[in-house]
Amino acid sequence: MVEKLLADFRAGDKVAAARIITMLEKGDPKGKEILKDLYKQCGRGYVIGLTGPAGAGKSTLTDALVKELRKKDYRVGVVAIDPTSPFTGGALLGDRIRMGDIAMDPGVFIRSMGTRGNLGGLSWEARDALTVLDAFGCDYLIVETVGAGQSQVEVEKVVDTVVMVTVPGLGDDIQANKAGIMEIGDLYVVNKADRGDADQVVRYLEASLELGHKTEGWQPRVCKTIAWKGEGVADVLDAITAHRSFLEETGKLEEMRKIRTYEEIIARARKMVIDELKEYKGINEIVERVYNRDQDPITAAEELVNSVVK
Amino acid sequence: MVEKLLADFRAGDKVAAARIITMLEKGDPKGKEILKDLYKQCGRGYVIGLTGPAGAGKSTLTDALVKELRKKDYRVGVVAIDPTSPFTGGALLGDRIRMGDIAMDPGVFIRSMGTRGNLGGLSWEARDALTVLDAFGCDYLIVETVGAGQSQVEVEKVVDTVVMVTVPGLGDDIQANKAGIMEIGDLYVVNKADRGDADQVVRYLEASLELGHKTEGWQPRVCKTIAWKGEGVADVLDAITAHRSFLEETGKLEEMRKIRTYEEIIARARKMVIDELKEYKGINEIVERVYNRDQDPITAAEELVNSVVK
Repeated sequence: MVEKLLADFRAGDKVAAARIITMLEKGDPKGKEILKDLYKQCGRGYVIGLTGPAGAGKSTLTDALVKELRKKDYRVGVVAIDPTSPFTGGALLGDRIRMGDIAMDPGVFIRSMGTRGNLGGLSWEARDALTVLDAFGCDYLIVETVGAGQSQVEVEKVVDTVVMVTVPGLGDDIQANKAGIMEIGDLYVVNKADRGDADQVVRYLEASLELGHKTEGWQPRVCKTIAWKGEGVADVLDAITAHRSFLEETGKLEEMRKIRTYEEIIARARKMVIDELKEYKGINEIVERVYNRDQDPITAAEELVNSVVK
Repeated sequence: MVEKLLADFRAGDKVAAARIITMLEKGDPKGKEILKDLYKQCGRGYVIGLTGPAGAGKSTLTDALVKELRKKDYRVGVVAIDPTSPFTGGALLGDRIRMGDIAMDPGVFIRSMGTRGNLGGLSWEARDALTVLDAFGCDYLIVETVGAGQSQVEVEKVVDTVVMVTVPGLGDDIQANKAGIMEIGDLYVVNKADRGDADQVVRYLEASLELGHKTEGWQPRVCKTIAWKGEGVADVLDAITAHRSFLEETGKLEEMRKIRTYEEIIARARKMVIDELKEYKGINEIVERVYNRDQDPITAAEELVNSVVK
């Protein structure tokens, strides 16, 4: 069954891809084996993160960006993290109804996911979905998240280009989050630019960026869009492409991805050990021993580690 | 040298106790061996946590409580966490100058500590200091921390009775933190009760406590004190003693301490593994392999765990 699934996946069957993601979400052990296999084929997709406050029009911008990428015939995968929904996955072909037209496109794969208690952060399931879509042959992967402080940091860990989306009328909000925002964006989009004070927001962002930003040698651009009309979206893609070229030419993409690889391995190793520590059956006995002062907690911890990890 | 130190420690030498705490703070490997040894002798001390906002007079109340405990001839150890100070330890006999009179008392041991980037939380070093003072024969251990949300949770992990200290004039502050505060205190102290609206704060706290609190079967008391005069402090000690009896008679003290033992062992085991994972010399090679897709990160993490933990 797994072999049939993998064969279908390799033949470009979206249903097979969706099934694999679901297996991974459900913690199916077969999913893990498949994931190991798929890793070999990934690393080719370029990962874009779209983040910003609720109501900034991130999903509309995502849709518009997908259409722009499709014009150039790129295959696109979208993982949309929805922190307001405890509901994850479900629909096989992408469950965002509003994305009707692009969801039907065989070159586009869309997946919505809850945050699994990660507070807007990126769950392992979301990372795994990106891996699956990368191996599926997507040239571009878009991760869409609501930009709370923590999730922004999280997004940085899996994304090559971070697009910060904002809208006019959030003045105070931007002020409050200024420091955090300015540290994180590789480019900035002022969406819903048909609203009155868009230019003011652009100027504000540009002025703030002069004070400092994330990457030495890269000056983040500020773009204006009206995403539902598709206006300005080509510019955003140009800016993404420029950032990508910058990262590739300076060797920073490789450097960044190696750091991410390191962090992923450490995080996975840590999770493995912690899961096993918590499940260790002999733990009550050890606790009794320490509670009764027959053993100190340091020796107990050492023993626990040795018992758990063979 | 370690044997001499331990002999002095066992003979009740405060300088030896201070030295051991310093060794632990500095991460001296000999300190860890000593700590293992000391664990056998501890668990007898009763741990009181004093927490609350800056300016509530926690240290004055601590001093007053120490004096009250000394009247009954108990030995007392104090670990005062000062989040504003990056400076830790230092003075051998307790570095709080204002505690002049009680610091000279051979039955009292006082130690101030920075938070070591733990944001007001309890560092491992603070926990270790408590263990040392417990083994030193202190009947009561007082941990004094500034009550930020996170540190309150942390204090709960090592403390038998949590005393929440507040003062009149923080009305809004209490309101804002109400939920958190009401979940955490075993008793409440309104200090600086000579200020005008102390009774209002008491009524407010009592009304809030009727809506729910931490421990089933235990009704937290609200005490008023003027700590610098020593007024009301005997009542606080009575309330602590009542809470202690409650915990002992219901078996909750044992239950709580076993949970804490469990958590400490898991935390120590986790820290051990993580420290080793990060220090593993072969990590760069593994990262290269994964980055080059010669290995998947799951297998790499498994390998890493196996290499690190023998």
